[in-house]
Amino acid sequence: MKRVRIVRHRRGTPARPALDQVAGEEPLEIRVDSRPIAVVMRTPGHDEELALGFLVSEGLIRNREDVRTVRPNVRNRSGNSIDVLLAPEVQVDFQRLTRHVFASSSCGLCGSASIAAVRRQYPALTRPLPTPDPERLLGLPEAMRLAQTEFSRTGGLHAASWFRMDGSLQAVREDVGRHNAVDKLLGWALREGSLPLRELGLLVSGRVSFEIVQKALAGGVGVIAAVSAPTSLAVEFARRNGQTLVGFLRDGRFNVYSGKVRAGKLRAES
Amino acid sequence: MKRVRIVRHRRGTPARPALDQVAGEEPLEIRVDSRPIAVVMRTPGHDEELALGFLVSEGLIRNREDVRTVRPNVRNRSGNSIDVLLAPEVQVDFQRLTRHVFASSSCGLCGSASIAAVRRQYPALTRPLPTPDPERLLGLPEAMRLAQTEFSRTGGLHAASWFRMDGSLQAVREDVGRHNAVDKLLGWALREGSLPLRELGLLVSGRVSFEIVQKALAGGVGVIAAVSAPTSLAVEFARRNGQTLVGFLRDGRFNVYSGKVRAGKLRAES
Repeated sequence: MKRVRIVRHRRGTPARPALDQVAGEEPLEIRVDSRPIAVVMRTPGHDEELALGFLVSEGLIRNREDVRTVRPNVRNRSGNSIDVLLAPEVQVDFQRLTRHVFASSSCGLCGSASIAAVRRQYPALTRPLPTPDPERLLGLPEAMRLAQTEFSRTGGLHAASWFRMDGSLQAVREDVGRHNAVDKLLGWALREGSLPLRELGLLVSGRVSFEIVQKALAGGVGVIAAVSAPTSLAVEFARRNGQTLVGFLRDGRFNVYSGKVRAGKLRAES
Repeated sequence: MKRVRIVRHRRGTPARPALDQVAGEEPLEIRVDSRPIAVVMRTPGHDEELALGFLVSEGLIRNREDVRTVRPNVRNRSGNSIDVLLAPEVQVDFQRLTRHVFASSSCGLCGSASIAAVRRQYPALTRPLPTPDPERLLGLPEAMRLAQTEFSRTGGLHAASWFRMDGSLQAVREDVGRHNAVDKLLGWALREGSLPLRELGLLVSGRVSFEIVQKALAGGVGVIAAVSAPTSLAVEFARRNGQTLVGFLRDGRFNVYSGKVRAGKLRAES
C-alpha cells in the first residue's frame, strides 16, 4: 500500500488535492538455482512464500525437502528478486519450464485429454475429500474479512485463505493479483511441511478462473469456495478432477458447481 | 457464456438443482508465422482482434500494414488457435519475444530507467493529449453499461472501451481477463487502421494495473479512466510517461492520479 497525491472531483464541490492509498504493485523476479525463470507483478510481502508457491503451482517442487534455501537475491537492491536453491536431487528441465510457464506449449489445455495431463503434474487428491457443512461455509467470508487488512477489506486487494471444515481459517494472504494470493498460501503450506494439504479448503475473495482451481490441485486441495463466480473452465476442470467447487458464497447463499456439500437444509436466519 | 447445472443453497430453503450461466474461459494459442508464441486464457469471441492486440502490446506490430493475414489455425479443430502472418518486412526476434513475454528478462521493470525502456518499445504519445471534461467523464460508466451484454453488466466479465472526449464510446469489448478486453480493443483499432490512437481514451470496468496503462501506451493512448482503483505501479508508470489516469470513476465522482482534467467545478446533481 502506498500513499499518492491526487485531485478529488465530486459533483457539487470544487476539485481539491488529497492523499490517497493505492495497492502496492511491483515486479518480483523468481530465480531458481541462479537462473531467472519468471517475473510476476505482485504486492510486496510474503515474497519467499510467493516464489515457493509459484514453483509448487508449476509442478516443480512438492514439499519442503525439495528446497535447500529461499532468500532475497543479494545483488538486487530493489528487494524485487528472490533466489530459490533446490535440493540436489531435484531435477529441473529449464527448457520445459520456460516453455510451460510462458506458453503452456501448443494449446495444451484445449481438450479433456490435456486436463488429465495437467492433473498428472501434481500429487493425486487424497480420498475421501473433506465434505463442507453448508452452515460452516456461510460463515467463511466474514471470517476472512475479519482477518484482512482494512485496505484489502474495502476491495483494494484480493484475499485468499486456507479454511478448516469447522469454519475456521488457517492462513490468509493478500495480493493485487488473485493468483499471487493463492501462490503465497501454497508457499506458506510448503514451509509448514503440510503439502499436500488433505483436510483444508481454499477460499478466495473474488472470482475463480482455471488458474485458481489448478493451483488448488497443485496443493492437493479438493474443496474450493469463492465469494464470486467461477469461469466455465474452472467448473470443467474441477469436475474432471473430482474437486468440490462452491461459488457466489455470500449473503446467506451459495451455488455448488462441482462435487457436493453435506446434505441438510440451511437454517433460516433468526 | 455457458450454461452449467448447479445446486443452489439458500438459508431457510431446501437446496435445489438449477441452471446457471458462467463466463466462458478457454485457452487461445497465438501463432506468429506458424510458431506458437503464447497461450492466453480468454473468453471466446473477437479472437483475431485479441491476437493482433496481444502483438501490439508486445511491441511487435504497430499498424495494419505489418500484418499480412490473421485467421483461425485450420489444423486446430477446437477453434482455440489463431495464425498471424506478418508482412515480409517485419522482423521478429523470436528469442527475444519469448523471453520478454515470459519473463520480462531479469526484473526489467524494477527501476525508473526500465520504465523509460518500456516506453521506447512503443510509438511516442502524440502531443498535446486530449483533455477530458469532468462532466463527460462522469457519464462514461453508464454509457459502457448500456453497451455491455447483460451478463457482463452483472459482473460476469470485465469490459473496456475506447471513448471520445465528447463522452461517447467508439468500441466496447468484454473478457474474463481485463487485459484481454484491452487487447481486443487494440486489435480492433489496428484493423481499423487507426493506430496510434490520438484522440481517444481508454475506459475499464475494474481496476488498473501496470499492464493496463502499458497497453494504453502501446496504442498511443494518453488518457485512462477506470471505475475502480489503480495500483501503485500504474500510477508511477502513467506519471513517468505523461499519461492522464483517472480512477474510482463512479457515483458522481472520480480521482485524478496522474495528469489533469479540464478545470471547472462539477455541477451539483439536480
